[in-house]
Amino acid sequence: MLLAQAGPLVYHRGPGFGDLMRRLTDGLRTLYRTERADVLLLTSSGTGGLESAIQNCFSPGDEVLVPLAGFFAERWKRLAEAYGLVVRWTEQPWGARVDPRLVADALAAHPRVAGVLLTQSETSTGVIHPIEPLARAAREAGALVIVDVVSSLGAVPFAFDDWGIDVAVGGSQKALSASPGIAFVAVGERAWAAAERARLPRFYFDWRTYRTFAALPDPENPWTPAISVLQGLDRALELYLADGVEAALARHERLSRAVKDGVRALGLDLFGEGEADNWTVTAIRAPEGIDADTIAARMREDFGCVIAPGQGPLKGTVFRIGHFGYVSELDIVQGLAALEMTLERLGHPVKRGAAVAAAEAVFGEPRA
Amino acid sequence: MLLAQAGPLVYHRGPGFGDLMRRLTDGLRTLYRTERADVLLLTSSGTGGLESAIQNCFSPGDEVLVPLAGFFAERWKRLAEAYGLVVRWTEQPWGARVDPRLVADALAAHPRVAGVLLTQSETSTGVIHPIEPLARAAREAGALVIVDVVSSLGAVPFAFDDWGIDVAVGGSQKALSASPGIAFVAVGERAWAAAERARLPRFYFDWRTYRTFAALPDPENPWTPAISVLQGLDRALELYLADGVEAALARHERLSRAVKDGVRALGLDLFGEGEADNWTVTAIRAPEGIDADTIAARMREDFGCVIAPGQGPLKGTVFRIGHFGYVSELDIVQGLAALEMTLERLGHPVKRGAAVAAAEAVFGEPRA
Repeated sequence: MLLAQAGPLVYHRGPGFGDLMRRLTDGLRTLYRTERADVLLLTSSGTGGLESAIQNCFSPGDEVLVPLAGFFAERWKRLAEAYGLVVRWTEQPWGARVDPRLVADALAAHPRVAGVLLTQSETSTGVIHPIEPLARAAREAGALVIVDVVSSLGAVPFAFDDWGIDVAVGGSQKALSASPGIAFVAVGERAWAAAERARLPRFYFDWRTYRTFAALPDPENPWTPAISVLQGLDRALELYLADGVEAALARHERLSRAVKDGVRALGLDLFGEGEADNWTVTAIRAPEGIDADTIAARMREDFGCVIAPGQGPLKGTVFRIGHFGYVSELDIVQGLAALEMTLERLGHPVKRGAAVAAAEAVFGEPRA
Repeated sequence: MLLAQAGPLVYHRGPGFGDLMRRLTDGLRTLYRTERADVLLLTSSGTGGLESAIQNCFSPGDEVLVPLAGFFAERWKRLAEAYGLVVRWTEQPWGARVDPRLVADALAAHPRVAGVLLTQSETSTGVIHPIEPLARAAREAGALVIVDVVSSLGAVPFAFDDWGIDVAVGGSQKALSASPGIAFVAVGERAWAAAERARLPRFYFDWRTYRTFAALPDPENPWTPAISVLQGLDRALELYLADGVEAALARHERLSRAVKDGVRALGLDLFGEGEADNWTVTAIRAPEGIDADTIAARMREDFGCVIAPGQGPLKGTVFRIGHFGYVSELDIVQGLAALEMTLERLGHPVKRGAAVAAAEAVFGEPRA
């Protein structure tokens, strides 16, 4: 995959690039589970893709709703505010799963809301939000459903068409494990209609320009894209889709369960509501008296094992282990062993090998 | 360079990334010839970098001036209009070099102009515009000087500090021959002051956020950047700067002169005012009775040699040969030989070997 980025670059205005574009958009449509939406490829981080949704769907003064329950939801709010939108929000504590009834009530209270800005995997808290019922509530209120799936697409179930999503923004570097640099945006029919009406200023991220170039006999990108990253993404999608989406999701579920069972076998508590659903990252409460930042720092220093400290109000009390993309069973075993040793060194009593044993139990189950 | 993109990625929130950022910004400062400006690294095409200049320097209704004389100047105009700016312009034919007196007159006629949007290398016409006197005229009128150097930085002389530039936007894939995906923006003091006042909406490209993250003890990027492209750019800069900027510019001048002498030895005319100054691309008039698009198409089909057809009003009458970045003397010889054979096949009388001989004469000169 990385080697695909080192190969000669396909010239983006020449032969071969159209085929690359077609393979990428077809593969991503499979991943999004959509037959109807267009998939646009932007050269930017996921944040740029989210900004494109704001720019293309709204006009100054439009109302949007953001259900707050973590860092990435708050980023949605800041982004919408930066564009002069009127932001309504529901508020739940970090670690809660967004409650569709709360959202429906807020939509009833604010009938002018034109879009609901959702985050599928709230990486800061380890929570997967219930996109399907949230999307239903939004559509019933006549609002666009815009979902940040940057860190979740490909790692947990998602269904653009069946769930009635209007816009979903993903990124190259997450479950697909390609290099960062490309955001992809699935745009449904209602969102295209919004893009025609929207009056917020936009140029580089103007979806209509991407559509024009995608409609050429050999699809192109309007601007010079990160070609090497596209080539790596092409290879990553090929690998991902080789066994089908279901198999990839089952792999993520198994790795996730191994981490969660392993952590619990050490007597630690998971953080976040519906924690079993998050197959991308596991948020864990640090044991009483041990700073979570210290656990993350020692894991890196002593074992070169990169885990994430807590963000915002969870700083110091929660740490997070990511387990999506090209992570193997032995990577998980290794990380859990490092955690066992780190906790022991920090003075927390640990039954050596317990976490690894729990993970091995998961990996030993017969495969479907 | 490409291999640097295939190596393991440096984690953008971890050790080593700060050093990468420091090397990149220091190297790019050398390239920009600035000691005072900050250099920001955006994950986007050059167009995104240009848009960042509009978003960060202006407020709705602000006036800007665009000297029109080719495709990329017209793109500046469309971009500024997309953001609701009032665009004034001077008009010269495609192929003309922008006249600083014309610009000074326009600035006198429109005293509210807050910024002048320039393009150093107008790739569509093969013209290098005289940035130094244009910048002087703009500054004397109290306007910001914003320059698109995407296709010129590193290939022709540029001096951010000495010429009094406020913003200059470059791209990874041009003279440095790194992969596309990163735009870099040099931002001077007056532009920072403008960024504090500007009221256009911005988030992903908000320069202030980049500055905050660059000021960390280990500089970071606010969003997940195209790390593989940054690593390739790092290696590309190292190669570029190994012999110093002057040597790289002299190499570009020599390759450019070889192309131009070669083309003239075939009896063809160069297109564009001050044509000798453009060391990035040479624009050539197709011989009477031969379509320029056909020349470009046959060069590719028969010899796999990629040259560019004419854009806009020059379509069919002008073709363009790029010769910057990692282009060798033998690449030039090869391209000229392909041009000789292509012209002959299209019925244009050619003295075989004449273009190659002219190029060899340039390459045979003693080096300074």
